[in-house]
Amino acid sequence: MSGVGGVRPGGRTARTRDAVRLATLAELADKGFDGLTVEAVAARSGVHKTTVYRRWRNAAGLAADALDSAAEEPWPLPDTGTVQGDLRAIAAMVVSGFEDPDRGPTARALVAAAVYEPTTAEALHGFLLGRLGQAEQVVERAVTRGELPVGTDAGEVVRTAVGSLYYRLFITHEPVDAGQARRAADAAVAAARAGVFVTEQG
Amino acid sequence: MSGVGGVRPGGRTARTRDAVRLATLAELADKGFDGLTVEAVAARSGVHKTTVYRRWRNAAGLAADALDSAAEEPWPLPDTGTVQGDLRAIAAMVVSGFEDPDRGPTARALVAAAVYEPTTAEALHGFLLGRLGQAEQVVERAVTRGELPVGTDAGEVVRTAVGSLYYRLFITHEPVDAGQARRAADAAVAAARAGVFVTEQG
Repeated sequence: MSGVGGVRPGGRTARTRDAVRLATLAELADKGFDGLTVEAVAARSGVHKTTVYRRWRNAAGLAADALDSAAEEPWPLPDTGTVQGDLRAIAAMVVSGFEDPDRGPTARALVAAAVYEPTTAEALHGFLLGRLGQAEQVVERAVTRGELPVGTDAGEVVRTAVGSLYYRLFITHEPVDAGQARRAADAAVAAARAGVFVTEQG
Repeated sequence: MSGVGGVRPGGRTARTRDAVRLATLAELADKGFDGLTVEAVAARSGVHKTTVYRRWRNAAGLAADALDSAAEEPWPLPDTGTVQGDLRAIAAMVVSGFEDPDRGPTARALVAAAVYEPTTAEALHGFLLGRLGQAEQVVERAVTRGELPVGTDAGEVVRTAVGSLYYRLFITHEPVDAGQARRAADAAVAAARAGVFVTEQG
């Protein structure tokens, strides 16, 4: 969920979108998805209510656009020299992104909304598949370097590196910490080294 | 989520609770948590509406009680002789539980509701921690047999064996299949063998 919150340069339309998006993120942090309304976002952003209704329609549209905007932002892919270092950095970003006092509540509200609201779910699906696709590069580089077996399914490795963290955060509702993030990444690396994720012949 | 749906013997109070619980599960399967109402559960169960209101209060109370009932039911812990076989069986039960045409929709509705509804979240937390605690026995047996290192954190192993499956089902909204369940279990075993989850000195 890294990168939610920046402002891009652009014309009046881009500025309107940024204002609405930032107001959406702030409202999500304050009130959660259940408390997200077009009226409050319009008031907070200074954009006229009829404009917000016309372009974003409702809370789900606002949340989906915030995710779409976040997906467009550059994301610093770690490049530490080892797949273990890279996956540890990615897992640590997941934990810090949800635990961060500023960005955490917004990120949690968006993920929670996506579990039951179809428009938000589609946007989160797109956002996460984009991020996961980028993260797969650290696995592909490791295969090229000879760190991991040829034929390793990069998508399974990165999902293993973060899956148990999301499971604790959103399903069992347990706290997560930096140690669990490190072990989640290390588990994915150990399994990949053992050939668990080799799903095709190289 | 195994075991949701059975009927226990008992007196009139137990029969009322079972009738309400079965009606709750059926309503969840048909309409999801958003469509769950005291009125519909009363009508479906044949229990008087004022009784349902008095004892379960609202949709969240009905869902929480259905989870509490499920938590009380016996759950067949696999005992295949190897930790790999046992964790594969547990991961396969997670996938089949959510993909099952009869029980799957109810199980998905309960997990989805728990992401944003606090009473359901607390009940799911209790249900899953009970199930995970039982599942930890397969890891503890493996440590005793010498299959896994002394000091292995059993809770981390079982969460790793199922976490990426829940991540796909509820967060990224991707399909899961038996092959992914098997690899999720194998990943947890490979990482445990490599000592990733050794968090205390034996």
